[in-house]
Amino acid sequence: MTNKKEISAAIIIIGNEVLSGRTKDLNTSTLATWLNSLGISVGEARVIPDVEKTIIDTVHELRVKYNYVFTTGGIGPTHDDITAESISKAFNIEYGFHKEAFAILEKYYEPGNFNDGRQKMAKMPVTANLILNPTSGAPGFYVENVFSLPGVPSILKAMIGGLGNVLVGGDPILSKTINLMTYESEIASSLTNVQDNNKDVEIGSYPFFRQGKLGVSIVLRSKDQDKINLCNSLILDFVKAKNIKIVELE
Amino acid sequence: MTNKKEISAAIIIIGNEVLSGRTKDLNTSTLATWLNSLGISVGEARVIPDVEKTIIDTVHELRVKYNYVFTTGGIGPTHDDITAESISKAFNIEYGFHKEAFAILEKYYEPGNFNDGRQKMAKMPVTANLILNPTSGAPGFYVENVFSLPGVPSILKAMIGGLGNVLVGGDPILSKTINLMTYESEIASSLTNVQDNNKDVEIGSYPFFRQGKLGVSIVLRSKDQDKINLCNSLILDFVKAKNIKIVELE
Repeated sequence: MTNKKEISAAIIIIGNEVLSGRTKDLNTSTLATWLNSLGISVGEARVIPDVEKTIIDTVHELRVKYNYVFTTGGIGPTHDDITAESISKAFNIEYGFHKEAFAILEKYYEPGNFNDGRQKMAKMPVTANLILNPTSGAPGFYVENVFSLPGVPSILKAMIGGLGNVLVGGDPILSKTINLMTYESEIASSLTNVQDNNKDVEIGSYPFFRQGKLGVSIVLRSKDQDKINLCNSLILDFVKAKNIKIVELE
Repeated sequence: MTNKKEISAAIIIIGNEVLSGRTKDLNTSTLATWLNSLGISVGEARVIPDVEKTIIDTVHELRVKYNYVFTTGGIGPTHDDITAESISKAFNIEYGFHKEAFAILEKYYEPGNFNDGRQKMAKMPVTANLILNPTSGAPGFYVENVFSLPGVPSILKAMIGGLGNVLVGGDPILSKTINLMTYESEIASSLTNVQDNNKDVEIGSYPFFRQGKLGVSIVLRSKDQDKINLCNSLILDFVKAKNIKIVELE
């Protein structure tokens, strides 16, 4: 089996609230899990402040390096929501009312309630494509290979489903996890042997705690199921020889 | 009141497991909260893969841009733990057994249990300073302004306490949060006025859900308590005029 293509993405989390420690970023995990399921690997993720120049520079840097760039945050109605205007400037596209977005929001709110703050959510690069929002009306948008989503995790989750047909994915990235009740140091050299002989399977080793005891999750990742199976059996061989217990984690 | 100094930091999360979506990064939030309490603002955070060149390049780029750089992850005993060797290369310092780290680990494990895997955790830039680990023995380390910590959140938390005396902080960054039962769009224009007249207070607006209802947290951040107090009273004025309910969140 050969890889038909390598497709990669970068994630940009826009938000002072993450850099201050106030808010834990959940969107990287959501986006990365979803992108991996489409065969798109995530090359890097960055958390940057609500600063126009930083947003523009980061978008420019990453969008030539990766097939896709996803931004989260900063598309709401308040003064600190500057993502849409920044993306407009990055692409040199007029920032203004997007006709389709305006129509969606006007219909979403009851007559008389579509105030200035809400109208701001229809402002974006005027020629952008919309990413529809089944939860709360206000759409995201994309320009070329840069996709802008909201920062609220539940809303972001509801919106990415609609993008499956827009993105061109690669071969799915397959994975297999083996959870062992042992210490990393007990298996380190055996695991190194398996990795050295199977360079194109990414083998990760991650300690965990369970009922007060330390364990290790070994994660095998590859686009080739046969190679994962081979590594799996090599690992089970040394696990059996060392008399290490295998457990299922939820 | 004038700022005595601006001290900044960057965070580098090293780990394929975060980029695959398997693991949610908790360390950015821990480090950012702690750094802010020391008067050190976090300028950016990056999640990068376990790739030597990427680690070296990212460290080089960020350590000249910020006063401090913190890396997390990749200092354990297995083959995918390459942070210590990468940092050695970044600083052109020999990668080998660190005498003090070796002595600590040798003492930590029972005789006969200090195997090859565990010994690897004593390998790092040989002239690095140690960051002691009260939880599980294996120390972190720092070279110049780059601090390398483990990826396991509970261990990282236990280790940063010892760094308070090493870092030079700035004026503490003060904050005040006001939680309102309203929509962002209802307060957007009033809040913009407050921000426009108080440029040196960072005013953030973040929607939240509570018992099925939408609310907004307004976060004021500045090094000057008087300026925070002024913004707070300006916000309470319009909140009262609009008859918006203020709530306490845990």
